[in-house]
Amino acid sequence: MTNYHNKSLPIGVFDSGVGGLTVLKSIREALPTENLIYLGDTARLPYGTKSPASIARYATQATAKLLEHEIKMLVIACNTASAVALDALKEQVHPIPVLGVVEPGATAAVAARPGGAHLVLATEATVRLGAYSKAISVQDPKARVREKACELMVSLAEEGWTDGEIAESIVRRYLNEAEADGFDVDSIILGCTHFPLLRDTIARVAGGDVAVVDSAVTTAVVVREILDSRGGLSDSEQPGHLHLLATDGATRFARVGGQFLGEPLTAEDVHLVDL
Amino acid sequence: MTNYHNKSLPIGVFDSGVGGLTVLKSIREALPTENLIYLGDTARLPYGTKSPASIARYATQATAKLLEHEIKMLVIACNTASAVALDALKEQVHPIPVLGVVEPGATAAVAARPGGAHLVLATEATVRLGAYSKAISVQDPKARVREKACELMVSLAEEGWTDGEIAESIVRRYLNEAEADGFDVDSIILGCTHFPLLRDTIARVAGGDVAVVDSAVTTAVVVREILDSRGGLSDSEQPGHLHLLATDGATRFARVGGQFLGEPLTAEDVHLVDL
Repeated sequence: MTNYHNKSLPIGVFDSGVGGLTVLKSIREALPTENLIYLGDTARLPYGTKSPASIARYATQATAKLLEHEIKMLVIACNTASAVALDALKEQVHPIPVLGVVEPGATAAVAARPGGAHLVLATEATVRLGAYSKAISVQDPKARVREKACELMVSLAEEGWTDGEIAESIVRRYLNEAEADGFDVDSIILGCTHFPLLRDTIARVAGGDVAVVDSAVTTAVVVREILDSRGGLSDSEQPGHLHLLATDGATRFARVGGQFLGEPLTAEDVHLVDL
Repeated sequence: MTNYHNKSLPIGVFDSGVGGLTVLKSIREALPTENLIYLGDTARLPYGTKSPASIARYATQATAKLLEHEIKMLVIACNTASAVALDALKEQVHPIPVLGVVEPGATAAVAARPGGAHLVLATEATVRLGAYSKAISVQDPKARVREKACELMVSLAEEGWTDGEIAESIVRRYLNEAEADGFDVDSIILGCTHFPLLRDTIARVAGGDVAVVDSAVTTAVVVREILDSRGGLSDSEQPGHLHLLATDGATRFARVGGQFLGEPLTAEDVHLVDL
């Protein structure tokens, strides 16, 4: 058993692909001296259209790989995997702490608009499981929640078409469909790690009164709280190392992932692993 | 070894997901008395953004599964798998005949616009491999070919947003990008099995002079020719049976696949298999 109390160990971050790099980016900004190891299961992405049984199996395998590298905390930076497999992964890595992105997103939305009407934009699998609806209703029984699958927004983010007329039309269509029966939105939760790239467009289309909640930022805050609570924050004064793993396509990972991480990557930065 | 000369055996059709159902549909229309077995590798779709090594491994596994069911011919109804793995699959199933969708598409485009400028709309992996460029230049050395990755069009087809303003804007943007330096298109090849659903929109945006070439239809014609040439066409007078296999998500396969096949499907029509 690894001594997961070793403060210099990395935080492990897992996603189905490159989208979780938006979460990684937020963690790096909040905790710049932490070592980080990221695993993107690019060979089997997207998870969002797969069955729960397959998603759970993939997440377990990815987690086992991160455990081989020794980590002091695990962040499931994929809404779909968080929705499907969080409890199973907690058991798998016990007693290492595990955080998904659904709970922090729900917390942030409830804090921003207590008793409000929340619209969760997410993948098909996340919506089908209703994970945000459950997490929000536990925290705020008066809140109303609607979840909407927005698969085209995933492609928009991957293609890099994140602003302009096409992005606005697609976002508008999804929002119109979600509000068609008079559901008057107070907050929009970006329930897929690809969607922070579309944040400005979503905010513009939704209008100024709507709070746009990004689980990447709130997840980073909670990571800090969890580590701090157990005295596990890095005490280094140097910038942390970043280690990137992917299960397929280093070149594409570097190209698309660079957009998500907000800094250029090359294929040499990405190490291919087999699960 | 199966007696693959048995005319009542099914034609095996393989795709990474539901897109190949457009090819299956064309084969059914051309050859209504043939038995057909379709395998969609939905657990690992999309292939279009994966590496060649992974795509080849997936295609080999899927083909092995279809061979278990005994087939008299194999159709690779996936442009990406055709571009990557056709030769390997021919070796794997020898002496059963194998047909990909790239060659028939190239043949149809060359026939429609000899010496012309062809624009191939496809996935990233198909474009990277340049399979259409090679196939066309062998058949027509005077032809010019440009290949363009159009990942958002895949999502449009899956979401069912195949006409209207959003679909037109996206198609227009891809065509404008492809023609930006004065490449004046004579034919557009639908180099991804999802794109026949966008055929009308593509034709409208491209304008009346441009031939829109659908490899699904030409593939069905060549399937008939190959079977006929070896005396392998079904001699039944009854409509053929259709057997649908998928590696994940029977419900989603039925919902999205019904659009591609052009008839409603239920999850009970789809048998889950493990590769």
